[in-house]
Amino acid sequence: MRKDGRANNMIRPIKITKNYLKYPEGSALIELGETKVICSVTVEDKVPPFLKGHGTGWITAEYSMLPRANEVRKVRDSVKGKIDGRSHEIQRLIGRALRSAVDLKKIGERTLWIDCDVIQADGGTRVASIIGAFVAVYLSLAKLTLKESPIKDFVAAISVGMVDAVPMIDLNYDEDSKAEVDMNFVITGKGEFVEIQGTGESRSFTQDEFEKMKNLAIKGVEKIIELQKKVLGSSE
Amino acid sequence: MRKDGRANNMIRPIKITKNYLKYPEGSALIELGETKVICSVTVEDKVPPFLKGHGTGWITAEYSMLPRANEVRKVRDSVKGKIDGRSHEIQRLIGRALRSAVDLKKIGERTLWIDCDVIQADGGTRVASIIGAFVAVYLSLAKLTLKESPIKDFVAAISVGMVDAVPMIDLNYDEDSKAEVDMNFVITGKGEFVEIQGTGESRSFTQDEFEKMKNLAIKGVEKIIELQKKVLGSSE
Amino acid sequence: MRKDGRANNMIRPIKITKNYLKYPEGSALIELGETKVICSVTVEDKVPPFLKGHGTGWITAEYSMLPRANEVRKVRDSVKGKIDGRSHEIQRLIGRALRSAVDLKKIGERTLWIDCDVIQADGGTRVASIIGAFVAVYLSLAKLTLKESPIKDFVAAISVGMVDAVPMIDLNYDEDSKAEVDMNFVITGKGEFVEIQGTGESRSFTQDEFEKMKNLAIKGVEKIIELQKKVLGSSE
Amino acid sequence: MRKDGRANNMIRPIKITKNYLKYPEGSALIELGETKVICSVTVEDKVPPFLKGHGTGWITAEYSMLPRANEVRKVRDSVKGKIDGRSHEIQRLIGRALRSAVDLKKIGERTLWIDCDVIQADGGTRVASIIGAFVAVYLSLAKLTLKESPIKDFVAAISVGMVDAVPMIDLNYDEDSKAEVDMNFVITGKGEFVEIQGTGESRSFTQDEFEKMKNLAIKGVEKIIELQKKVLGSSE
Amino acid sequence: MRKDGRANNMIRPIKITKNYLKYPEGSALIELGETKVICSVTVEDKVPPFLKGHGTGWITAEYSMLPRANEVRKVRDSVKGKIDGRSHEIQRLIGRALRSAVDLKKIGERTLWIDCDVIQADGGTRVASIIGAFVAVYLSLAKLTLKESPIKDFVAAISVGMVDAVPMIDLNYDEDSKAEVDMNFVITGKGEFVEIQGTGESRSFTQDEFEKMKNLAIKGVEKIIELQKKVLGSSE
Amino acid sequence: MRKDGRANNMIRPIKITKNYLKYPEGSALIELGETKVICSVTVEDKVPPFLKGHGTGWITAEYSMLPRANEVRKVRDSVKGKIDGRSHEIQRLIGRALRSAVDLKKIGERTLWIDCDVIQADGGTRVASIIGAFVAVYLSLAKLTLKESPIKDFVAAISVGMVDAVPMIDLNYDEDSKAEVDMNFVITGKGEFVEIQGTGESRSFTQDEFEKMKNLAIKGVEKIIELQKKVLGSSE
Repeated sequence: MRKDGRANNMIRPIKITKNYLKYPEGSALIELGETKVICSVTVEDKVPPFLKGHGTGWITAEYSMLPRANEVRKVRDSVKGKIDGRSHEIQRLIGRALRSAVDLKKIGERTLWIDCDVIQADGGTRVASIIGAFVAVYLSLAKLTLKESPIKDFVAAISVGMVDAVPMIDLNYDEDSKAEVDMNFVITGKGEFVEIQGTGESRSFTQDEFEKMKNLAIKGVEKIIELQKKVLGSSE
Repeated sequence: MRKDGRANNMIRPIKITKNYLKYPEGSALIELGETKVICSVTVEDKVPPFLKGHGTGWITAEYSMLPRANEVRKVRDSVKGKIDGRSHEIQRLIGRALRSAVDLKKIGERTLWIDCDVIQADGGTRVASIIGAFVAVYLSLAKLTLKESPIKDFVAAISVGMVDAVPMIDLNYDEDSKAEVDMNFVITGKGEFVEIQGTGESRSFTQDEFEKMKNLAIKGVEKIIELQKKVLGSSE
Repeated sequence: MRKDGRANNMIRPIKITKNYLKYPEGSALIELGETKVICSVTVEDKVPPFLKGHGTGWITAEYSMLPRANEVRKVRDSVKGKIDGRSHEIQRLIGRALRSAVDLKKIGERTLWIDCDVIQADGGTRVASIIGAFVAVYLSLAKLTLKESPIKDFVAAISVGMVDAVPMIDLNYDEDSKAEVDMNFVITGKGEFVEIQGTGESRSFTQDEFEKMKNLAIKGVEKIIELQKKVLGSSE
Repeated sequence: MRKDGRANNMIRPIKITKNYLKYPEGSALIELGETKVICSVTVEDKVPPFLKGHGTGWITAEYSMLPRANEVRKVRDSVKGKIDGRSHEIQRLIGRALRSAVDLKKIGERTLWIDCDVIQADGGTRVASIIGAFVAVYLSLAKLTLKESPIKDFVAAISVGMVDAVPMIDLNYDEDSKAEVDMNFVITGKGEFVEIQGTGESRSFTQDEFEKMKNLAIKGVEKIIELQKKVLGSSE
Repeated sequence: MRKDGRANNMIRPIKITKNYLKYPEGSALIELGETKVICSVTVEDKVPPFLKGHGTGWITAEYSMLPRANEVRKVRDSVKGKIDGRSHEIQRLIGRALRSAVDLKKIGERTLWIDCDVIQADGGTRVASIIGAFVAVYLSLAKLTLKESPIKDFVAAISVGMVDAVPMIDLNYDEDSKAEVDMNFVITGKGEFVEIQGTGESRSFTQDEFEKMKNLAIKGVEKIIELQKKVLGSSE
Repeated sequence: MRKDGRANNMIRPIKITKNYLKYPEGSALIELGETKVICSVTVEDKVPPFLKGHGTGWITAEYSMLPRANEVRKVRDSVKGKIDGRSHEIQRLIGRALRSAVDLKKIGERTLWIDCDVIQADGGTRVASIIGAFVAVYLSLAKLTLKESPIKDFVAAISVGMVDAVPMIDLNYDEDSKAEVDMNFVITGKGEFVEIQGTGESRSFTQDEFEKMKNLAIKGVEKIIELQKKVLGSSE
């Protein structure tokens, strides 16, 4: 059993607060265990230059952490004058994940700016960002007057890994620090893959280990998407 | 009467959530009406080069807004590669305000990093930051083993202004936008000034108008400091 | 009596050289004691995007110091790649002060760029900048063909402070370094306030102390505006 | 059959020129079809601060493209003043891949700086970089006097994807542009995974499609590692 | 005799590979002894703002070194976030040299972007860049449909210097490091000067020394231009 | 005759104000016709890392223009976040020129920071900077207690050019704008060259033209050095 009492195939409690902020077109506070991320969506009535006149929309994401979201204070990117490599990588991932969930032609020449700001980080900030961003995007699109729903499918994400040679889902910060293998899956409501990212941190991993992690992830995302549906369906 | 039903000498409801974050040495979420700021304090066991070996500590502050804390999305400073002028000005103010409340010699060669991150902005973000930062600083200092309390006095702040030629306290965003004069006062528990900032936005202002705004501010800060004391005194 | 022989209510000698530079539409070298600032004004026939089509003008300011304007050489902002916080704060103050003196509607869709470059710094660089910038702005506007004068009122500024518990005007660098309280007032020809900035550097200050400093400032600015009028009235 | 006559499971011709540059401790020019990357390794006798005194080494990578490596000229990162997100992501991948191949404890407190500079880009620049970087790292380590070989295993990488619903290996630029799914595998000599990156560009992908791409990649890397061994074994 | 066996008036072997890259409108790899530079030319169908509507073209150059082109690894400009002073100086020189060779009116409103990327540096990188850039520019212009040839004259460059009080041509890195005087000449096919740059590194130099270096340079460039003609004349 | 009445071999009036600033170890305001440059020297008791422990000193220079030193306002480098290419080139030239005049071993492990700030630009700012910087350096060295004078020789500089096919000395801005050839010479008191920079702006130039410009420069610098000697010899 894991330090916090979870079984290896058990995800931490997830709480999603819809419309957490007053101004954005869509927003959510997502809590995945102790990890907390504010996701907001801004709808802008224009697209980047490379899409102008193509009749299609765009979705882009930015990801950042408050300086003291972690055990140790991190210097702000604005002070360093540049975005760090890890944030770049994560925000590109969030953008791709959400673009896969939305039919960009159906939103017209609009850009959705997703902002994921991590308030507190205890592992899984990128997957929490994707789960929350989907909710915020969904809410923002519901406010537009469109002929058809541009949502192609639900999308969620989860981390899995090998810790002490055991496959586990939804690693918290401590588990993540000692994981030998670290993976993130972005998966649709139909159970298809949008993104697979796996890294052997301290060793390479076998095909068999990959299979076990993959299966944990598929089942985990199923449950998360159920929750997203419940949250978005409720009138509260 | 004001749009939100307040009298001209009435401050919006203030709610302070102590220890809002898990990792920082001190933290607070402050809500001043719809304005919400996360304040966190990191205690570092060293001082900037100019203070090394002087046996005294230092307090510095950083202030930032989430991109969609406002009606319109703001480009992140990290994307522009520099901190904007307004943020610079505000974080310097927060630093001065908090340094005035603490006897830096009594904290030894330590630096307190204050981070004020505005989650939602409806006017008064700089004064909310100071009110919340005081709470977070107080909490962080209580965790240190020090011979004597380094707190010299309580400190709080409030905005006042002339709106349609009427002196008013604690302007929200709408009132602030049409204010002719905009002032911020930082005041101690003894009722002395730490900082006075006043700007005639659309016109200059008379000595008499100044007197009226000053008196509103003095009384307003008194009430806020009472609240800080209550929050810090409670065991919750 | 003060080190340089001045009474506490006495301003250092001010010398203003009109049209100090050949190219700008308006310029002045101002010497406030040993403090020297070159002020220049560039008139551009367009306004920033947020004002386009509103039929109104804009005034903005930039403030900088030569690297060796001070006792110790300062690294250039261009080498650090960013403007420091103090310069930001000062140039925003200069901009606000001058915008208060000019009816922006009467200058049409033009921008006045004020450049204040400190050649030598012996305290009071920001107030010297405002005094000199007013002269340079006045000269530049006189060259435009406008229906009515856009000057609403004269504007000048002065510093005051508490040094060894004594209220004093126009602090030089040495006095400023040991001042307990440091204030800057921007005041119009009619004696109204445009800007009040006061900071308790090493301690908070009382309402009574504030009154004394305020009165020193009001009388000081009166004399400075007399000088500005004399300089601008002379044909030399 | 593919436009360039290859079967779907066929990799483009690979040419590796060892010791391509005169100065670096290790270097290689790798040509993967028309894609050309110069890989060089610099051995520095110190480690980053976070590793000082741990008796272990470090490997880090930088990746860049010449401005006209592509059909369209790209503005240099040095002109924009920052590294773009894609380069960040790729150089982090290269670093992780090579760290997995080397026992960092066995190289002592040294840093290997890998530079991958793309001279010409026709798809697969990140996998070509990893293949070439392994050769350059191997050569640079051979020059050090170490008790034991720090090479844990060979490492290589290849891209696979779904193009018109057909699984294919080693996509060139044209194929990559129209691929529905795009994956990169980093695999060891033992056939274990170091890194799996898969993205559904225009649609999600099924478990079955993943299996087919994975199998193509495993066989492809086997052949590439044979080539690396041949190149490194030859005395030329 | 020199270390590498050359007489003092002897240039190192030059090898120019035309059309070295696949994508640029013109390109060349130039090898001057061990110095290797990739020169590429991109033709863009617009000009910088200051030339718009003048019916004339523009040529601009960028110069950079791979991090390990030298004995010691250099931090990338993109990591430092700015171009270093030496690169700035060299790329301005390359731009001026090539603009002197081309009648900009005859190329119409087009910009030629020259990129010189030093792969390996053993002295003379700036003159090698100019020699190679001329070839790349020539090739790129030959692809345009123009009424008249815009080439006014051939242009090449060479370094000369005083080493141990002896005038020498085409210094390699070792010679350059100990040269007392370092000069670069850019000279046309007619033997006229386009650019003269001479620096007394460790001492000043006499008029007589200047004459000797100048004569070496004139004869050296004659031979280089012969080579350029041969390379450009060949059909290979 | 030239527009301002000068003969072709005549330099504009030069005025040098010694000790123009209060704080720097050495300073001068130089006026070359309408061109005005403030030169200051800061003596720092340490050297850059690459010279530490070598018992030798260093001289480095920075060059900048006030935004409105020219006809048209220039955006500050600090606003753009980087130093422009032209300034880089000029400050490197000033540094080399002054290092040639001083025996760096005789100043010990000290750095001389030269700051040349152009207040008004009417052609020849770089040569004016060198002339004034020599005076400021000389004054700063005179304040140090050294065994022997570190001044090896006087150094000055002047521009020459071909304007309408006529060789001329000391071009002002108008002449410089239409010059076909533009040269700068840095020459010692003994008449030896420290630096030669010549550019064919709109055409190449012949050996004969070069000879004429060179002779103008040699005679011009002789006169400037006489003036430097007079200024530095006077007790005023």
